[in-house]
Order: sequence, then C-alpha cells, then structure tokens
Amino acid sequence: MDPLVIFTPSGKRGRVPAGTSVLAAARRLGVDLDSVCGGRGICGRCQITPGYGEFPKHGVTVAPEALCGRNAVEDRYERVRSLDQGRRLGCQATVESNVVIDVPPDSQVHKQVIRKAAAARDIKMDPATRLCFVEVQEPDMHEPSGDLERLKDALVQQWGVDKDTLRAGLPVLRKLQPMLRKGEWAVTVALHRGHADAHEHILEIWPGFWEGRLYGLAIDLGSTTIAAHLCDLRSGEVIASSGIMNPQIRFGEDLMSRVSYSMMNPGGDAEMTSAVREAINRLAKETAATGDIDPVQIVELVFVCNPVMHHLLLGIDPIELGQAPFALAASDSLSMDARELDLSAVNPSARTFVLPCVAGHVGADAAAVALSEEPGKSDDLVLIVDVGTNAEILLGDRNRVLACSSPTGPAFEGAQISSGQRAAPGAIERVQIDPLSKTPRFKVIGCDLWSTDDGFEEAVATTGVTGICGSGIIEAVAEMRMSGIVDASGLIGSSDQTGSDRSLPDGRTHSYLLHDGTLDGGPYITVTQADIRAIQLAKSALYAGARLLLDELGTDTVDRVILAGAFGAHISPKHAMVLGMIPDCPLDRVTSAGNAAGTGARIALCNRAARSEIEDTVRRIHKVETAVEPRFQEHFVAANALPHASAPFAELRKVVDLPDPSFNAGGSAERGRRRRRPIRKE
Amino acid sequence: MDPLVIFTPSGKRGRVPAGTSVLAAARRLGVDLDSVCGGRGICGRCQITPGYGEFPKHGVTVAPEALCGRNAVEDRYERVRSLDQGRRLGCQATVESNVVIDVPPDSQVHKQVIRKAAAARDIKMDPATRLCFVEVQEPDMHEPSGDLERLKDALVQQWGVDKDTLRAGLPVLRKLQPMLRKGEWAVTVALHRGHADAHEHILEIWPGFWEGRLYGLAIDLGSTTIAAHLCDLRSGEVIASSGIMNPQIRFGEDLMSRVSYSMMNPGGDAEMTSAVREAINRLAKETAATGDIDPVQIVELVFVCNPVMHHLLLGIDPIELGQAPFALAASDSLSMDARELDLSAVNPSARTFVLPCVAGHVGADAAAVALSEEPGKSDDLVLIVDVGTNAEILLGDRNRVLACSSPTGPAFEGAQISSGQRAAPGAIERVQIDPLSKTPRFKVIGCDLWSTDDGFEEAVATTGVTGICGSGIIEAVAEMRMSGIVDASGLIGSSDQTGSDRSLPDGRTHSYLLHDGTLDGGPYITVTQADIRAIQLAKSALYAGARLLLDELGTDTVDRVILAGAFGAHISPKHAMVLGMIPDCPLDRVTSAGNAAGTGARIALCNRAARSEIEDTVRRIHKVETAVEPRFQEHFVAANALPHASAPFAELRKVVDLPDPSFNAGGSAERGRRRRRPIRKE
Repeated sequence: MDPLVIFTPSGKRGRVPAGTSVLAAARRLGVDLDSVCGGRGICGRCQITPGYGEFPKHGVTVAPEALCGRNAVEDRYERVRSLDQGRRLGCQATVESNVVIDVPPDSQVHKQVIRKAAAARDIKMDPATRLCFVEVQEPDMHEPSGDLERLKDALVQQWGVDKDTLRAGLPVLRKLQPMLRKGEWAVTVALHRGHADAHEHILEIWPGFWEGRLYGLAIDLGSTTIAAHLCDLRSGEVIASSGIMNPQIRFGEDLMSRVSYSMMNPGGDAEMTSAVREAINRLAKETAATGDIDPVQIVELVFVCNPVMHHLLLGIDPIELGQAPFALAASDSLSMDARELDLSAVNPSARTFVLPCVAGHVGADAAAVALSEEPGKSDDLVLIVDVGTNAEILLGDRNRVLACSSPTGPAFEGAQISSGQRAAPGAIERVQIDPLSKTPRFKVIGCDLWSTDDGFEEAVATTGVTGICGSGIIEAVAEMRMSGIVDASGLIGSSDQTGSDRSLPDGRTHSYLLHDGTLDGGPYITVTQADIRAIQLAKSALYAGARLLLDELGTDTVDRVILAGAFGAHISPKHAMVLGMIPDCPLDRVTSAGNAAGTGARIALCNRAARSEIEDTVRRIHKVETAVEPRFQEHFVAANALPHASAPFAELRKVVDLPDPSFNAGGSAERGRRRRRPIRKE
Repeated sequence: MDPLVIFTPSGKRGRVPAGTSVLAAARRLGVDLDSVCGGRGICGRCQITPGYGEFPKHGVTVAPEALCGRNAVEDRYERVRSLDQGRRLGCQATVESNVVIDVPPDSQVHKQVIRKAAAARDIKMDPATRLCFVEVQEPDMHEPSGDLERLKDALVQQWGVDKDTLRAGLPVLRKLQPMLRKGEWAVTVALHRGHADAHEHILEIWPGFWEGRLYGLAIDLGSTTIAAHLCDLRSGEVIASSGIMNPQIRFGEDLMSRVSYSMMNPGGDAEMTSAVREAINRLAKETAATGDIDPVQIVELVFVCNPVMHHLLLGIDPIELGQAPFALAASDSLSMDARELDLSAVNPSARTFVLPCVAGHVGADAAAVALSEEPGKSDDLVLIVDVGTNAEILLGDRNRVLACSSPTGPAFEGAQISSGQRAAPGAIERVQIDPLSKTPRFKVIGCDLWSTDDGFEEAVATTGVTGICGSGIIEAVAEMRMSGIVDASGLIGSSDQTGSDRSLPDGRTHSYLLHDGTLDGGPYITVTQADIRAIQLAKSALYAGARLLLDELGTDTVDRVILAGAFGAHISPKHAMVLGMIPDCPLDRVTSAGNAAGTGARIALCNRAARSEIEDTVRRIHKVETAVEPRFQEHFVAANALPHASAPFAELRKVVDLPDPSFNAGGSAERGRRRRRPIRKE
C-alpha cells in the first residue's frame, strides 16, 4: 500500500506513491505549502518539519527513514541560506513510508495574520499577487516565437497558469528581454489576478531567482489626513506606517467646501485631484523609505476614502455629491493600474483597488469599517460610529445592516471651537473637573502627567499648553455637565449659580476657565457658551443619525458600540455617553476599534476574497439618507439637551464612574477607568 | 555665450554648445535635416550649406571659421561620392561660432510625396466597437447605486451585455455624470470587445442619441513612411488617407541603422519611440482633418509594421532584433489602450491592436499581407513579395505557407544609386529604351507625358527631372538588358559594343546616359556600372529568398506572383521578371496588390474575427531564417546574372512584350502592356 502522509496542523491526510516529494503530496492533498521556485530547492519557502516515532492520535508510527535522506540540493541550501534543525525542503524530501509532516506558519501561503485585539478577526493571507520562478526556453530562430510567448508557455507548464488569460503590460514588455538574458533564461515574475478580473497580469519580472518581497500599501485617504500602511504581502505584517496632511485642505477644510471649490472654479477638481495624487506619491515614497524597501516592490495599493475623496482621487468632479440625490459616479469597487492615477512612485505596473462606496455620503471608508468590524456577522446588535467631519454610522447584526452618514461638522475635530486645535503636542486631550471644587485638571498630548502633577510644567515646557483638541473638548463639556457647571439645556452657569470663580462673564453668557497660561505668555483657554453649542450641534447630529437607524430597526437600544477612526481611538466612551453622542449601552460594551477603515484596507490588500466579500456586503447594506429624512431633524432637535432625553442625567451619574473627588488620588480613578474602558489594543 | 545657429529656410534658431554637430543642432532645434546613416558620414543626406559674412536679416556675422574645418570623413566622402562646392556634411561639421546654415531641399526629409494609397477590397464588417443607445434609471438616494452601475444595468437589460465583463476606464468615468444629465438619462455608448478580451469596455459616452459615426485608423508603420487610412467602422469605407515620413529616418534610414543608433546611444530607443508616436499623433490629426471628422470619433487603431518598428512603437529596445537569434520581445498580437502609447490625438479611451509578428525579420506587416492576400487559402502556389528595404516573402497554398525576409537593401527605393532619389515629383519612374536605336524615353512622377512627347519640357518645368526612383531604376536596368546595352553578367557595353553613343566611358567601366539636363542647369542622369551592380545585389537577394522558400517546398515554379507594397504597386512586372527579381511565372499571373499590408490592417480594423484568424495563420506559417541559411548564399550568388540562370534571356524575350521599336507609337505599346499586366483593381 502507498505510504500515508498526514499534514499538521491542517490534519489533511492521504496516500501518495513512495518517492513523491512532500511538496507534490501537499499539492495533491490541498495542503497549503508555499513555493516560489516551483520545487527547485532555491526559495526555501516549502520548509517542513517531519515528526518521527509514535503518533497515537493519528494512528501511525513514523520510521526514521520515512523521508528520503537529505540530498545535495538541501545541503547546498543549508550552506548558502541555512536550514533550521529538523527542517527539510518539502520539494526535495520524498515520502518513503508513513509520515507526519508539520507545516510551520512561515511555510503557509494562506497563513493567519493574528490581530491582537480580542474581538478582531484574523486576516487570512490570500494576496492577489504572487511570485513565481520560471525557467524559460531560449529563443530559436527556426521557431521564432517571442520572448513573452515563451515566458507564458513556461508559466503554463511550470505553474499551471491559464495562457489565454495571461497579460503583460508595456512596462513589463519593455524590460522582458534584458531580464531574461540577465537571468540566463530563468526569471521570477509577479503574477497578479484581481478578485473580479478575468485576466492574470505579469506585473513585474526579475532576473533569476529573486529573493525579495512584494509589498502593498493600504491607504486611508481622509479629508484631513492620508495614512498609509506598508504591508508585506507574504506575512501580512505592517512594515511601516506614515501619514501626511491632505494637501486639498488648501481648497477647503471640509468636503463640502471642496465640492464648492470645484463648482466655482473651472478645473478646480482637476487641481485637487493632482494635489492629492502628488501627496500619495510623496507618502508612498516616505513609507517605503521608512520601511527601508524599494518602492518598486510596492505592487498593489488599496484605497479607502469617503465619496468626495473617492471621486477626487479618480479625477471625477464631485459636484453631484454636493446636491440631492447625491449620486455617486460609481459605487462598486474599482480596479485599475496605479499609473492611470499618476501614482508613479510605486511599481510602474502596480494595481490599485478602491473599495466600494456605500452611498453618496457613506464612502469606501465605511465599507472598510464594515469589512474590519463585520457588523453583518455580529450576533448582537452593534452600532459602529466613525467620527470625522462627517460621522459614518453602521448599525446591525447578521440579519440586517443599516448605514447612514451624519453631518457632525468639524467641532469634534477641535475646529470651530474658541480654543480648539487639531490633535498635536500641547493640545489638551483629557479633562477632569472636581464636582465639588469645580476645578479642572487636564493632560496634553505628548505628556503623561496631569496638569496638577508635580513636574507637569517642566514636562510641557517645549510644547506648552496650546489649545483643546477634539477629545479634550468632549471631555471638558461632559465634565462641565457632570460637575454642574453646565445645565441640561447646555447653559454655563454664572459663578453665583455654579459656585466657581472659573465661571466668567463673557458678553451676555459665561465661559469656563480651563487654563490661564498668560503669565507665561501662553493662551487663556476657556470653554465658551458658543463652544458648548457647537458640541451640542455635533453630538445631536451624531445621535440623530444613530437614532434614525435604530428607528429603522424598530429598537431603542444597542448591545454594543464600536468607536472607529482616529477620533474613536482617543475619545472617552464615558464622556461620549454623558454628552449623549451615542445611544445608551452598557459602558463596558463600548470599545474603540482604532483605525478600522485602515484595517479594512489592509484586509482587502492581503485577502482577495475579502474584496468580493465587501462588494457583496455593501450591496446588502440598507442605506438611510439623513439629508432628506424629516425624522432626522426631529431627532436632531430632541437630542440637543445634555444629557439627551432618553437617558436621564441621574441614570448616567450612576452608570459612569464619577471622577474621584480628590485629584490627588487620581491614580485610582485612572485604574477604575482602565478597568471599565476596554479600549482594544492592536 | 554658446554660438547661435540659424537654419534657413525654416528660420529656426538657437544656441548650442561649441563643438555640436550641425546634425545634432538641427535635431535639437527641430530642423528637418535628413540622415540615412545616423551620422556616420556615409550617406551624404545631411548635406548643408553654411553661409559666411554679414546676415543683417538675422543680425549675425558669420566668421570663416564658424564651422570646424573639413575633416577626414568629409574628404573621403568627397573623394568617393563628391561633395558640391560649399556643401558640408551636417553630421561632421561642428558649430564653433555664430552661423547661418541652409538646408537644401534634397536634405529635407519632409518634402517627399507619399505614394501609399488605400486599396479597396471586400471586407466583412465585424468591428470590435459598436454603438449602443440606452436609457438609464435616474439616481434614487434611497437606493444609492452609482451612475455607472445603473448604466451597466441598462446595458444588461437593453443590450444583453454580460455585466460582470463590463469595464469602464477613467476617461469615461470622468464624463459619465455630466453626459447622463445632459442626455436626460439617455446616452449612447461605444462598447468595445477585443478579439481575445474577456472584458467589454465602455469606450465613450455621448448624451442622448448620438448620430455620429465611429472611426478607426489602419496604420501601416513603415521604416520610411507612415500611412494611415481612416475607416468608417460601420461602412468599412475609407474616408481619408494620409501619409507622412517616419521621423525616425533622422536616426537612420534603414532598420539596422536604427537598431545601431539604439545600441550606441543610451535612451536612443526612447528617443525614436517618442518621435514615431508624435508623428502618429500628427498623422491621426491630419487624417481626421482630411476626413472632416472629430479625432475623438477615432476609437480604434490597428498597426502593421516590421519587427523593428513594432518594438519602437511599443517602446521596446529593438537591440535583440539586430543579432541572432533575432528574438522578438513579443510575437503574438497585442491589444492595449492607445493612451499607453501616448497616442493622445484620438479618443482618450481608444483601443489599439497590433498585428502579430511572424519572426524576428518578418513582421506584422507580413502578417497583414498574409491577411490581405490569403496565401493559406490559395488553391495554386502563390508567391507574395513585399519589397522595402527588406523584402518580405510569403510562399504557399492551402497546404502550407512559408515566410522569410531578404536583405535587399535600399537600392530598390532609389538609394545607393548614383542618380537615385526617393519617389517624388521629378523622379524618373518609367523607362523605355528602343532596342534598335538604344535611345531612351522616360516618364517622371507628376507628369503623364513621355519625355519624347510634345510639351514634356513645359510640363516638368516646375519639378525638373531630378533623378531616378526605385521603379525607374528597375525599368532602366531591365530595358538596358533587353536592348543589349548590358550583357548577362551585368556589364555595360562600350559604344562600340552597344552601337550607342549613350554608352560613355566612366573610369574603367561604362555608364549609360539617360538624360542630360545640364544645358538647363539640371542633372546629368546616367546609369552607372555601380548602379547595375547595386540592382543585381538587391534582385539576387530577393530572388534567393524566394528560391529558398521554393526549395523548402521542393518546387521550382510558382503559379502566380503578387507584388505588394508601395513599390509593388509601381513596379512593372515585366521588368521585374526580366531582371530576375522573381522566379519564373506566366507574366499575366503577376499582379500588384497595392498596399497589401495596409489592406490587412484595414481588414483587422473592420473585422474582429480576422484578428484571431491572423494570429492562427501566423502561428501556422513556417519561418525560414535567411541570415543563417547557407543555401541562401548559394542562391544569392547564382542569381547574380541578368537574367537569372533558370530563365534564359531568349525565353524572356518571347514572354515579355518588347517595347514598340518606334517611340512615336508608344500608345500601342502601352495598350499591349495593359493587356498583359492585369494589375488588380480594387
């Protein structure tokens, strides 16, 4: 009887004729075992570990000679590249009798990339681009086929590629002849097949056996910032991350001002398109430099972005997105050559995938969040809020997922706030107000100390205390409400009403003094009545959007809340709930997903099936358009109070852990907060 | 400051570093200055006349030493080929100080008249691009699909298109929204499906019902000329034809000098690629203007060309084509977006199809000839000869088709001939020599009269009689042979031997005086012994190639001969056979196919199935590489005689209709010729 081969950890088993290589056995049994060189003992990707002795679980005994002895190819490989103790090359070791073979994770193509957060799904590696080493027949003037045709033939014979679907673009055709000759008729090619592409593309070619790695860029193209994550397309690992400001800011801070710019300036959209493409090129170069790789190794890019950025990236005038019915030019995902987008910093044949948009106000970024957080696979009802200048809101479970976007405006990002600023060193990001003394303490970005701690002034000497960022103003307003400085209608009390001399008359209203830095030439930082109103408007919009989706589902409560985005990573769930930004939910069921859109982009980059999956998911998402929904307006008005109507203040006081009255015992409050705020770490 | 160079008659001027050659300066300043040899001082095509002294008009004074002194290369050129008083070789003379340089007409590339014309033939219409009018659903913000997705849905519903295969490129996406709105949700789209493309592309979109027509360009990209035929993709009709000189001529007249240019100049291939692409853009615009259509209506381009032009068009360094084994980068047909080739003059989404190449020396032009003349469908054995600087030869019938190329050199095009010139007004293109009196008469291009007719001198007053073009030299040599001025070995007899005072001593050999224009300041046009030798070499090469293919088939004779190409259209079959250019064949079975390559391009443009057909045909053609075939050399040597060994002269005298002894009765000779020369009319 033929020997039995059992692969672990997959558990796949079967009989193969004696003398079959482990690589061939793995392929026959559908076991995931990598190989770039196609079994020539060059790449070392197919390393396996045979197990010897008794395996009662599998019911076999493995003899020492179950695999053939090490051959010259393996000896050479060990000499040149080193081979760990107990490892064999799967393409060289042949099965001689029953054997148990372990495939270590680094030899698997479809390995799982573990995301550290408990709730996060792992990424299964299945990239669209792979490396294949091939030996190509030399040209024969009596059978004068082209070099490309002989390369294709080799790929058909050695890798089972379908010749009719193979394509090579001009950048590859241009270098094909020198590469084949330099490699002495052996080359490594990068083959790419998009998730819905009938063709397989030869993206790049290297002479001989190329030992390098392929990379992809997952790009989160935001209105304000552009973030790129450089991923190793074999390991899924993030090698480097970089971010830059979106240069379109000079055409308008928020999306609608960019749409207006395009409306009022002929060619304005082209100007913005070229600005953002240049920035992406710069970012790609920077990220490659940070990761210490050649940008030519970047063969794929995945973009997530809101609809306006989506259109401006593609060179489509976003004018229709500025007016009902907010029609997208294209909603499905798009694949194209990076050079069509003038993205010249990466490989000249690099392919681009842009995630689908959900609706005219709900972009590919929301789709990416859905891909990362999988509301459609949730057993309980989950609300996902991605707050930016627009908040994008997903609500649902495995039965149904709804989506809308809500015009929160830029207040949550620190804009339109009297002392507001973007999140940068020196910005107040944490605030606590003693409910008895009504005195505040705060933390600034770049310093771990509270403002009341010893050494704080020295620690912030370089940055100073410069203003309040988005998370800071949310905490400040929530704390002002909890300490009674602000009433339910949002009015700041006078010093007589609040009993605090930090309540300062300010015209016909009052302001609350957070920090007076004027003695040191610094700013005088207050929260004004107008600031409270701006936050009220923003939080009402956010709440109303979520509320509208809850109405649509016929429910009042959610089982859990995920705060996504850079903002979501920094916001305090407790304060968000005090403010009434999000519907009621047990505080310990409120988590932060970090940059979920960026994670979604990474998933689409590493796993081709995820691209089809998100297309499908987006098609099934029910979209609710807030802009024309009368109930949105009703919810918006009703949600203006602090706290909102559905969660009486007294209840919230019980739910949230009020700050420790004594600031000197702040440590314990921090511990308590930590306990109750399971911010997901990735 | 760098010296100033002023070119006349163009008036182009600019500064170049001292030491720059006049040819390099001309290239840099975009001045039309010919070059055959690519700056080696061999061809003499770049002759210029420097002006010295005061040029008030140009504001310069030219010193006697403005150009460097004559060098050894020029001395040698003058010795061998003669150099008129005051003339310099532009590639040798370097600019040392301010200078005025005149480019005489005979050194300009762009003065030529192009003789390629479209030939008509029955074509079954089956273009790859079609127009579809569709009504698209309006956007609904509650079902927020993209405009593209609704357009696709409409195409699926109204045209039965397969949605999964539909693609729209960025140029269409960019205009989609305004077009849909302008057309009030009804648009006309151009859909394109290549012959081997799994995807169907939306190439263009017009608002409402668009009544216009789609056009394609069939482009015959020759080494010397580029000819374009603008075809209506519905009727197949040729709307306009244009031709321009291939600007690559300035890098080298023949293909191998261009390959050398690429070898010797880093980036030289890119320079040639960009030159030819610019020319194609110019040609596309011109052709559209001639046809009175908007270039945006040109949605397809089909290219036929020899392998070197094929590579240079695609931006591939042709270096491998210059050395055995003459490997093509790609031999199969190629489809791509025209914008990938920088062909911006046509529709931004236009698609390009490049016919397959047969072998390293037998290009897509030969494939196009095969598509047009269909040797593989012939019941009798047909020999097809496409004569250019290289002759491409096809031989076969429905059983088997063979192909080779033969290095005839440029003699058949009038180059390397003492009084040779390109086909242009004033060039002698027809010659008859009275066998009794040994006196000649001739016709020149641009005039229908014989030189002996009344009014000839007035008719050619503007052009003059300037030289002999390719068809003229062939007729001259054949007529010299038939009238006994030249013997079988190719030797021109003395006046004693020939009995003609037009046999003039010329060194150790003799020349035959064709035309003496010196009294009117014109040229003294003779056929020299060297000219006879050049034609003998060229015709031997051509014959040897054909002979090699006959050997391969094991036969001596062909049933019919087709002369293809611009040259084939003008050559006299009788004279070609007298010369022994082509194997024996009844004279009435020798036809001209006109521009068969261009016709093949037109067929591929109008009929998608023809694209698959020619791929298939090319794959089945048996290629014979003359460059390494010893028998080629044997045949070449054996074919040197006039007439060749296999067709005794006496036989030929019977076969051909000798010219009427009396030139005054030329009309009847013409009639006789017409009767026996069934030049196919298309």
